[in-house]
Amino acid sequence: MTDLESRLDEYIEANRDRFLEELFVFLRQPSISTRDEGMGECAALLCNLMRDVGIDTRVMPTSRHPVVYGEIPKPGAPTVLVYGHYDVQPPEPLELWTTPPFEPQIRNGKIYGRGTSDNKAQIFIYIKTVETLRAVFGDLPVGLKFLYEGEEEIGSPNLAPFAREHKEMLSADIAYFSDSHIHESGRPMVILGLKGMAYVELTARGARIDQHSMRATGVPSAAWRLVWALNTLKTSDNRIAIEGFYDDVRPLTNLERETIAQIPCDEGALREFFGVEALLPGRVEDGYYFNLISEPTCNIAGLISGYTGPGSKTVLPSVAKAKIDMRLVPNQKPDDICCKLRAHLDRHGFQDIEIEGHNEIIPSRTPIDHPALPVITGALRDAYGSEPIVFPGIGGAGPNYVFTDILEQPCFVVPHATHDQANHAPDESMDLAGFFNGIRTGVRVFPRLAETLRR
Amino acid sequence: MTDLESRLDEYIEANRDRFLEELFVFLRQPSISTRDEGMGECAALLCNLMRDVGIDTRVMPTSRHPVVYGEIPKPGAPTVLVYGHYDVQPPEPLELWTTPPFEPQIRNGKIYGRGTSDNKAQIFIYIKTVETLRAVFGDLPVGLKFLYEGEEEIGSPNLAPFAREHKEMLSADIAYFSDSHIHESGRPMVILGLKGMAYVELTARGARIDQHSMRATGVPSAAWRLVWALNTLKTSDNRIAIEGFYDDVRPLTNLERETIAQIPCDEGALREFFGVEALLPGRVEDGYYFNLISEPTCNIAGLISGYTGPGSKTVLPSVAKAKIDMRLVPNQKPDDICCKLRAHLDRHGFQDIEIEGHNEIIPSRTPIDHPALPVITGALRDAYGSEPIVFPGIGGAGPNYVFTDILEQPCFVVPHATHDQANHAPDESMDLAGFFNGIRTGVRVFPRLAETLRR
Repeated sequence: MTDLESRLDEYIEANRDRFLEELFVFLRQPSISTRDEGMGECAALLCNLMRDVGIDTRVMPTSRHPVVYGEIPKPGAPTVLVYGHYDVQPPEPLELWTTPPFEPQIRNGKIYGRGTSDNKAQIFIYIKTVETLRAVFGDLPVGLKFLYEGEEEIGSPNLAPFAREHKEMLSADIAYFSDSHIHESGRPMVILGLKGMAYVELTARGARIDQHSMRATGVPSAAWRLVWALNTLKTSDNRIAIEGFYDDVRPLTNLERETIAQIPCDEGALREFFGVEALLPGRVEDGYYFNLISEPTCNIAGLISGYTGPGSKTVLPSVAKAKIDMRLVPNQKPDDICCKLRAHLDRHGFQDIEIEGHNEIIPSRTPIDHPALPVITGALRDAYGSEPIVFPGIGGAGPNYVFTDILEQPCFVVPHATHDQANHAPDESMDLAGFFNGIRTGVRVFPRLAETLRR
Repeated sequence: MTDLESRLDEYIEANRDRFLEELFVFLRQPSISTRDEGMGECAALLCNLMRDVGIDTRVMPTSRHPVVYGEIPKPGAPTVLVYGHYDVQPPEPLELWTTPPFEPQIRNGKIYGRGTSDNKAQIFIYIKTVETLRAVFGDLPVGLKFLYEGEEEIGSPNLAPFAREHKEMLSADIAYFSDSHIHESGRPMVILGLKGMAYVELTARGARIDQHSMRATGVPSAAWRLVWALNTLKTSDNRIAIEGFYDDVRPLTNLERETIAQIPCDEGALREFFGVEALLPGRVEDGYYFNLISEPTCNIAGLISGYTGPGSKTVLPSVAKAKIDMRLVPNQKPDDICCKLRAHLDRHGFQDIEIEGHNEIIPSRTPIDHPALPVITGALRDAYGSEPIVFPGIGGAGPNYVFTDILEQPCFVVPHATHDQANHAPDESMDLAGFFNGIRTGVRVFPRLAETLRR
């Protein structure tokens, strides 16, 4: 460790409690994008947190939730675009939280609360990285741009239009951000690709209103129609049966395949963590990470029809709905997949099933041989004291195509949450060690990238 | 019409507004048995309404909701046991009601509110029948017993034990009651059989808690397990596929078949009423009433898993549940059907699907050739001025086996609601004309039954 780096670490250590207090203010502010709760307030709060450390920041409106954009220009130096999101998932079911989702609490070395790991602590890391670098160096080694959006949890509908509109403003040498989580072994990670997404809601209809269920001998049931339609989409061996679904799946390259093979995997520990007797077998081959990275999904995220309260009610439902998220891999295209879903349902006699599209994300991957990769893994190795793992892709979907395809920047995801973060679920948490390792990584990687990218 | 009968009709006409005012007090009292809302209050109110007309009435506790029992003994005369229920279905979804469910309102010749037709107005008919007969005759021609329970909408778990325990107290020549609805043509009906019921809740489980849906390549989904399991229960041609489900279905007798053939049926009007393009075809033969009466069902009354709120959430659900009501015909037995369901799921690889039984009702039928039948159809003909229709059975389930099998009484169901009553659904209603025709039928049928049953 260089002398400078130990000074940076000392500054972080000395300001530990204050960093957490500031983070907690950010966590207490709900920002549930899918139902427009607290979004404007959270954007304003984030803007102020960034201005406090000297980032030139403004709240930029979109057609729904604003972007918080900031910059610290450095003429002649390379520029890094830092991305993240300040919106969070809905906290329901509330009764399964140990402490309220928007009252963050530290227990067992973790900060518990909605949006802790996904993604507020992980974007706050870069605000404190800037503060620390400035406090120690008086200046920054690279130009920095910050693009913090409020629509990631609803599929980032305005991010691509925003990037197209502000391509010049957002220009940079690489995109860099922290989302997702590190490996369950505790080793840090770099992620080079995210999945795409086609999220749809299917609706089946029967009689014009709910009927007494004695009519079931004569009146069609929306619930049965939905069950029968869903059943055609995926077979019980977990293979997606939508005709042509796998057609555009690009097989992994040899380098990708070798890199995945190096990812440590304890399937016994995974089974215990999930509380399942067995992990699902793969379509092409078995292996948790092989499938997580290379296989698309067709998941039922929600299912509802008829009476779902306590006790019994004898009703013949007039409506049944399923929310379906399909995670896509290169080179699947969300709009093409939606067309195939429609054609599949029609072909199987389910012309009556309605499809409403909620959002679409294009899958993306950054090449493994980019020169920034060894710089990033080096910084992680020094900050964490353990060997980083490189993921050619991961199970999560996200708008990386905005960087790789629209802004034409290689894109590196460097997570600092732990694998038991429970994001999207009750008792979401952010590891305290991960939060501070994130800042320690940040203050190392930006100076080193300045050197490498200048060449 | 006899002179006496016209005096009875005059009394009913003269007291029309007061009868409705008293009924509305009864309707305003919620009594939702499935979630224990207002049950004790409603029993006490009903008890007072009965005492007000001189019925010797008391509230008799059961292990859950009390029975309201009353009697007017008449030594030497035949006795009729009048049955009904004061509990109602939950009113949800509330947003689909035109006016609040427990604030009854008259519109278009109907009383709207939860529990109007099912079953409060139809049990109140007999309270006003007693008042009218006494006001005109000073006395009653038959002995009457009243058994009004509070658990019909949850499958009458305490009715059979109560009948067994109080067999002497409940002894009578026939059982007689008003539930269900008259024919859609407006012609009155007599129903001689009700279906049985096996109501179960199926639960599928995946990971120990909900997971981020990116895990869907490796972690089993409760929602897909449930869809695949449900799909094995019923094929898309509407045939129940549980092995042995139809084994004990007794084919209709020739008399039952001929009687059903006389039921008028306008399938075009039914399609329009339900808002469907086609009625379901039958397993044995087509025909709405043939299937309604003779075919058992396997209906999905409720379906829930994962996120069902507005917008999108990407969750891999850890639990999925389906409420299933199976309506049974003679000689199917609910416990046997539940065993067959378990065996079926096991045989198809769904040993992991949990089955919780909610309630069981044995199907029942009264023979068409009983001497009370022509008396009842005669009274209906005179009160309504149109020809009654006899149903050997109907789609609704109910505890008629308590009368036919336990109390050994032939059991006649004489409905006065109309077919568009929307019971179990939003905007439930009771036809005003039906309510008063019910009282006009009551004051005719009891004196005539006194004659016929005395022989």
